[in-house]
Parts: sequence; structure tokens; C-alpha cells
Amino acid sequence: MTDFGTAEHYVGAVKGNILKINSLVQIVDITHSITPFNVMEASFLLYCYYKHFPERCTHVVIVDPGVGTSRRNLLAATHEYYFMVPDNGVLSHICAFDEIESVREINAEHYYNEYVSNTFHARDIYAPCVAWKSRGIEADNFGDKIDDYIKLEIPEVKRIGGKILKGRVMHIDNYGNIITNISRNVFLNTASKNKGKNPKVIIAGKEFKEYRKSYAGAQNELFFLIGGTDHIEIASSQASAQDLLNLEYGKEVGIMFD
Amino acid sequence: MTDFGTAEHYVGAVKGNILKINSLVQIVDITHSITPFNVMEASFLLYCYYKHFPERCTHVVIVDPGVGTSRRNLLAATHEYYFMVPDNGVLSHICAFDEIESVREINAEHYYNEYVSNTFHARDIYAPCVAWKSRGIEADNFGDKIDDYIKLEIPEVKRIGGKILKGRVMHIDNYGNIITNISRNVFLNTASKNKGKNPKVIIAGKEFKEYRKSYAGAQNELFFLIGGTDHIEIASSQASAQDLLNLEYGKEVGIMFD
Amino acid sequence: MTDFGTAEHYVGAVKGNILKINSLVQIVDITHSITPFNVMEASFLLYCYYKHFPERCTHVVIVDPGVGTSRRNLLAATHEYYFMVPDNGVLSHICAFDEIESVREINAEHYYNEYVSNTFHARDIYAPCVAWKSRGIEADNFGDKIDDYIKLEIPEVKRIGGKILKGRVMHIDNYGNIITNISRNVFLNTASKNKGKNPKVIIAGKEFKEYRKSYAGAQNELFFLIGGTDHIEIASSQASAQDLLNLEYGKEVGIMFD
Repeated sequence: MTDFGTAEHYVGAVKGNILKINSLVQIVDITHSITPFNVMEASFLLYCYYKHFPERCTHVVIVDPGVGTSRRNLLAATHEYYFMVPDNGVLSHICAFDEIESVREINAEHYYNEYVSNTFHARDIYAPCVAWKSRGIEADNFGDKIDDYIKLEIPEVKRIGGKILKGRVMHIDNYGNIITNISRNVFLNTASKNKGKNPKVIIAGKEFKEYRKSYAGAQNELFFLIGGTDHIEIASSQASAQDLLNLEYGKEVGIMFD
Repeated sequence: MTDFGTAEHYVGAVKGNILKINSLVQIVDITHSITPFNVMEASFLLYCYYKHFPERCTHVVIVDPGVGTSRRNLLAATHEYYFMVPDNGVLSHICAFDEIESVREINAEHYYNEYVSNTFHARDIYAPCVAWKSRGIEADNFGDKIDDYIKLEIPEVKRIGGKILKGRVMHIDNYGNIITNISRNVFLNTASKNKGKNPKVIIAGKEFKEYRKSYAGAQNELFFLIGGTDHIEIASSQASAQDLLNLEYGKEVGIMFD
Repeated sequence: MTDFGTAEHYVGAVKGNILKINSLVQIVDITHSITPFNVMEASFLLYCYYKHFPERCTHVVIVDPGVGTSRRNLLAATHEYYFMVPDNGVLSHICAFDEIESVREINAEHYYNEYVSNTFHARDIYAPCVAWKSRGIEADNFGDKIDDYIKLEIPEVKRIGGKILKGRVMHIDNYGNIITNISRNVFLNTASKNKGKNPKVIIAGKEFKEYRKSYAGAQNELFFLIGGTDHIEIASSQASAQDLLNLEYGKEVGIMFD
């Protein structure tokens, strides 16, 4: 996952450098359309998809305004996955909701490309390092453990009096679905403690009560549901909720069980 | 092929779930830019490309406004290909022009992911099922045959008096080429029965007679040809025909041999 | 690399036809968003990435306004790489900066698809030929050597009096970075001959002196650096230089050591 876009050769050059070292590796694009430099967006989406991949795979996420400065290159590990990322907080959501077992600074320069630019570490450092990793080089060969890596403050979901959840808009997707940081588990736990009460959503001065199991149903009405990211979404059937609400990242959203 | 777009992790999450079960499979993206919910567009494009793949491969097409409802998940087969698709008519063009040998409802839940959401069957049902299929599980293990699957009424090409073809605009492509539903075969058959007569195209009140073998030639003039989809296209050399005509899906197009 | 876009099945149809012949090949997308018909843009980007791939791989670049005419299909080779391209000048940058060892016209029709259209040679000629090439068919089997292939005049960097470099804008990238044709080597050579002098950039009537090692630093100011394409770029930290300068392809850019 990167913010490189797909109009240039940048992603291809990274893949080419991986294949120079391991021509048999499976490379999967997630998206290259992260808003340029938006580490928080990348952190949230990474958290949404990382467990959907085979165990022991390495997730590479390059949204890297600090490339070429003293910011470090990291190899992190949870119990099941590896991550190669710049030290800029892109692991913040995973830190908050999963256990990071180790974080290493990648400084074993013999795994880098011979020429290392100041402007394209994805090609010159991450590509060769993830390729060597995929060939079986163990994590401890890439550098020493550190524990002062950067964690960003991520928007938290507040629970008020057991019956109100206050979250934030995290992302607007391709369909205009408005994705919040209120996870399936948090919502269902709160709902089960408020049996018999119907939840309503309050956002941008609007209220609505329709909770659906799926996107189907009457068209062009606002409703909310547990979406494909396993978080509460505000949606509109076969239409864009964002066209109706025009929200921005970070906008507050409330769910009240009444 | 999906309408997921490429700005989120949705396509990646599907691929990750496939690779969990078969890490050696070849996955090919067709497009993820189908107009959201436009089953007819997906049906037409699927029909244009499905035979360009190796025999016995499985085409997965997810344009699925009905996800999470009672709409069924299908595994269809022609003599040469398999298809995993929601039961919403996306096979309509293939039904019309090829022989569907069998259609099964995918209900063998032991091939599903453990957790099945109501909003992301591509990840929770199609990914694992196509992965098991690619590992050699035969079609009859996925569910029982049905024959009441949905077929949409697709725009037909009318032949009038042996010298007029009336079709429809099916798609505008990246170059602004206007792709119709008049296939190469239909056009060439009609042309061979009208030897010596020059065809002219009538569309949106405009007429033009230039039929080309390729896109090359004088610039910025409207002409028609058999395009890369093996259908009659209206094009403009190194320019966008759509910029000149501004047509919409479904617009009528006539070809007259005079 | 193509100008096909990703909204249709065109790229997928090419890949499917490759996989029909070699289902084990690694196919890497570079970009499919070359400006339609812009051979010069493709030539420059190809030159920027081709060495980042494993030796002996074949680069296929289809930006092909002349498809279906008498323009030839080529198989070219440098010492390390193969190229399958229409004969339209797309190798011009590589010709200028590397040694082309041989160029053959691909006319061994037994490697083509059975049906060859006039509008989609990527699918009907390039896909099967590159697939057979990837299975080990040697270059000389595809056709005879030619030496009158097309070379476009590419924008040159002029050196004036040893202290001025005059180049051109070649590309604006996803971040709004303005990429010139002044390569790292040319810049660093000139800089080393002008030790102690600070370079300034002159473009579109603006002058600025800030040369950075990386993109980081104060925001929203124009500076220049050696970018990810290994050429001089004009950039703006975490912002789009293009938003500030609004330049076009071909615009002159000067660097003066004073």
C-alpha cells in the first residue's frame, strides 16, 4: 500500500527490484491511492486488511513524507504478520488493537540496493529487504530491536453512560460509504447491553434510525450498518451517502441507544 | 472484475483470502471500475473478455447491490470456463451468445470463511470458494444445480430489411471510443449480403460513412470500425469520439447499407 | 506499460492471452495511464524504470496510434533486456542513453494468435509473442534484424559555458512533482565542476535556489532535488509544485551555477 498513484512507474520499479531478488514471490497491490502523505488514513486501512492475508506474509506500507531524513525504516512483527514501514506512525491502529511483538530498525545495509537514493527508499531499501525476507532471511538479521517507534494518537471511540458511542469518520470509500472507527465488536457489545433499544445515528446535525443488515433495501435513504471494513458505516442503498452528507475525515459521529 | 474501485483495500482483502488457501494461484485483475451497481455493463464487458483466458479458469465478477440478501451465489459453467457470480444477471450476455452448461447455487458453507459478513461476500464467500476451486475441488461439490437463475433482457441488434442494423451504445472506453453491441460477426455477415454498398452510421442525428480498418488516418474525424472488443465502435483518430458526440449508455445507433 | 486505462478489460485480455501460453509467467503492470497516444511520455518513463527489472525480462510497451497500419512490431534487445514495442519511437530515450544491440521485426506469424485484429495487436500479437518468448523461444526466431526503426528527436539537455544547464519538463507526477530531463549524472557532473557555487533554478519566470537532499523540510516552498526517477525534479514539501507553477510538458527549465 502506498500513496504513489498508478500513473507513473513508481510501483512497477519497486516490484522489479523485488523480483530481481525473488522472482517467485507473490506481490499483492492493496491500493496506491492513499491521499498523499496521509499516514493516518494508511494506518486505518492497514488495520482493516492485514489479517486477511496468509500468516507470516510481510505488509509493506509506504506513505513516507520523511523519506531521506533521519526517520528510520522498520521491520515490525505481530504474532502472525510482518510489516516493513517507515517510522511515522503507520502502525498506530495495529498497536492499539493488536500486540506488536517486536520492532526492529532495518539497518543491515548489505540487504539494501547498491545505490540508495534519498527520495525513493521503497525501491532502494524496502524492495530488496522484503525480497530477502521472502527468501527466508529471519527478522533479526535486518537490525536491532527498538521500542521508541512512533505511535500517533488515533481517534478513540468514547462510551458515555453505557448507551452512547462517539466515534469519528475515518474514510469515505468508492461507493460514498462513510466509514467510522466504531468497530463491529464495540457496536455489538453496546447493542447487547441495550437490548430492546433501537440505536440512532447522529451526524452533522442529522439523525436517522435505520439500521440494516446489508446495503439492500429502499434506495436513497440514509442508514447505517456493519460494512466491509468491519466498522459501522453510514450508507445509502445504491447511492452515495457522501453525496447526501458531504463529510470530512474526523467528523464526529454518535450512536445513541434510546 | 468488480465495482470496488482501487482506492480502498477491498480488492486486496479478497486476494489475501484467496492466497490463504492457494498461495500459488494466478489472479488477474480485469477492472475494478465498473460503474457502481451496473450489472449490465459488467455483463457486456465479461462477454467481451472471457474467452481470452485459459480454459477451465474461473471468472469472478462482483457487482453486487444485493449482497447479504436472499440473492444466491452462483457457480456457472460453459464448456470451457467457470464463473462465480452473484445471481443478478451478470451472465446475461454469455447466456445469449454461448451455451451455459450448468449453474449451481454455491451453498457448501464449509468452503466459506468462518466469519461471513452481510456486506462483503467477495471476501467471505467468493475468495475462499474460488481458491478451493483452483485447488481442484470439482464444481458439483459447491452446491446443487438450479435453472431459475436471473437473466436480464439485453439490448438486441435489430436487422431491418436485410440492410439496416439497429444497435445500442454499450460502453465508452478510455480513449472515448463508443462501443456498440453490433458484433463483428453480425456486421460482416450483413456487409457480405450487401456487397458493393457502403455502410453509413446514423447516431444522435449525425451521419457519417467512413469505415476504417484501423484507428489510423486523418485526425479528428468520426469513423467506425471493428474495435478491440470485437464490436462496432465509433471512433476518432487520436481523439475522443465521445468528446464530439457526448452519448450515453443505451443510445440507439444505426448502420445502413445503401 | 500502456495507454489503455484500467476501466475496461483491455489489459486483462492481454494478460489472459499471455497466460494461455505460459500460465507461470510473472506479469508486472507499470502503468496503463500514459496519456493516450503520447509515445514520448512512454519513452521517457520506460527509460526511467527498465533497469529496475531482472535481466533478460521483456518490457512490453503499447502506446500505439498506428495499430493495424503498416507500422512494424519490434523485438529489440540491449545487453540486458528485451523490448516488444510498436515501431513508433518508444525506444528513443533508451537509444540515446544505452546501446541497442539488435532490433527485429516480429513477423513470425505462427507465434501470433489465430485471429489477428487490426485494432488490438497487444492482445493478438504482443501477448502470444511475449508469452512464447518467456517460455524460452530465442529472439532470432521472431523475425529478421532491421536497422531503420524509428527514433524520435528527444529533448536534449544543453550545457552553456559549463555553468548553465537547459532542460525540459518531461512529466508531472502523482504528487505534483515536476520531473525534468536533467539526469542525476549530468547535474552532479556539472555541480562538481562548479564547486562552491550554488545552483539556482529558473523556470516559467521564477527563480529559486533551494536544493534539497530529500522532500522533507519546510512546507509549501519550491525547491529542487534528485527525485525518484533519478532526474532533477521541482518539488514542494508535502504539497504540489504543479499547483504553484502549472507547467506543461516541454516547458524549458534552466539550472545556473553562479
